Amino acid sequence: MPNTDTITIAAGHGLAVPLEAGRSLRVVNTHGTQVVDTWAFVATDSTELLSMAHCREVLQRITFEPGDRLITNRYRPILTFTADTSPGRHDTLIAACSREMYLHAGRSGNHRNCADNLVEALKPHGIMVGLIPSPWNLFMLAPVVDGRSIEYQRPRCRPGDYVEMRAEMDCLMVFSACPDDVYPTNGGNGTPVDAHVELLEDLDE
Amino acid sequence: MPNTDTITIAAGHGLAVPLEAGRSLRVVNTHGTQVVDTWAFVATDSTELLSMAHCREVLQRITFEPGDRLITNRYRPILTFTADTSPGRHDTLIAACSREMYLHAGRSGNHRNCADNLVEALKPHGIMVGLIPSPWNLFMLAPVVDGRSIEYQRPRCRPGDYVEMRAEMDCLMVFSACPDDVYPTNGGNGTPVDAHVELLEDLDE
Repeated sequence: MPNTDTITIAAGHGLAVPLEAGRSLRVVNTHGTQVVDTWAFVATDSTELLSMAHCREVLQRITFEPGDRLITNRYRPILTFTADTSPGRHDTLIAACSREMYLHAGRSGNHRNCADNLVEALKPHGIMVGLIPSPWNLFMLAPVVDGRSIEYQRPRCRPGDYVEMRAEMDCLMVFSACPDDVYPTNGGNGTPVDAHVELLEDLDE
Repeated sequence: MPNTDTITIAAGHGLAVPLEAGRSLRVVNTHGTQVVDTWAFVATDSTELLSMAHCREVLQRITFEPGDRLITNRYRPILTFTADTSPGRHDTLIAACSREMYLHAGRSGNHRNCADNLVEALKPHGIMVGLIPSPWNLFMLAPVVDGRSIEYQRPRCRPGDYVEMRAEMDCLMVFSACPDDVYPTNGGNGTPVDAHVELLEDLDE
């Protein structure tokens, strides 16, 4: 796997990855247990971004599937979800973990968290977010059972399972290898691990 | 119903209502067919607000029920959902309608919409929002069926059905009598109607 196009998302940390329109990348769940919070901002205007609530509305589904065109808060396609070797059902319902979430759960206020990871990853790109947008929680299993309840489940990914997506416009993607050790969704052993992003060859070049 | 504590949310329009900690209000679906998009901002800091994604996380449910304490994006209780005479299941999953939504649906760019209603209602209070926060869509039926698909359903409310909520901190509430004539959730006859807010007596006074 180590080649020049493979980028490590360090355990518990975030990472911004610019992705040109037409280019694809793969998010690899290297060890099979890691949730990766994912955001995508339009390169030229960060107030337009991948929106879970707008995708749910238009797709009429709470989860996304290969073939889906994912849209922004202005109804423009920003990503196409192109492939998935994992058991899927990547959560779209739950907020990014934050300092306040860990405090609420009785943890330290210094706990690493996806909200701060997003802020830190955007900073070098000159982007400030006010509210933390809802992330696409790759590999996170929080299915809706009985049409009503959310069930936090342990990961069912195999090491190396991945999802692929293609940019439909120039965008800045942000990934956070979620530091959650409160819910069972991240493996539940309190040890976040690395994940990886692979930038895929452009077949047209 | 017309008394000094009853406020009309005009069909297709929005309205801001300050609500002190401990005070309650009732949102009345006067004609039984009207979705009311609802937001609540902390009075002293509008970057803290009722958050659907955080409520879903903590309540482990995609819908809220009487007795639920609804929280902000900082995990503090802002409202208690105290009563509901409607069939419930008020949607938490779908974005507020917006100019772009109506354009995407082939409607006019001048269509009234809940996103602009929010912006307009907040303006006199000196509050600007960047991203439009996900609303609590009172009376909107968009259940998740088969654990995956969202089904847009016609309203099942009776005229006069209401929900009640109590403020847990001083807040500014915003209501929008949704102008949607695209989805069946608003009655599907293309005619948004008025709804009402009743400020309830404070029993302690």
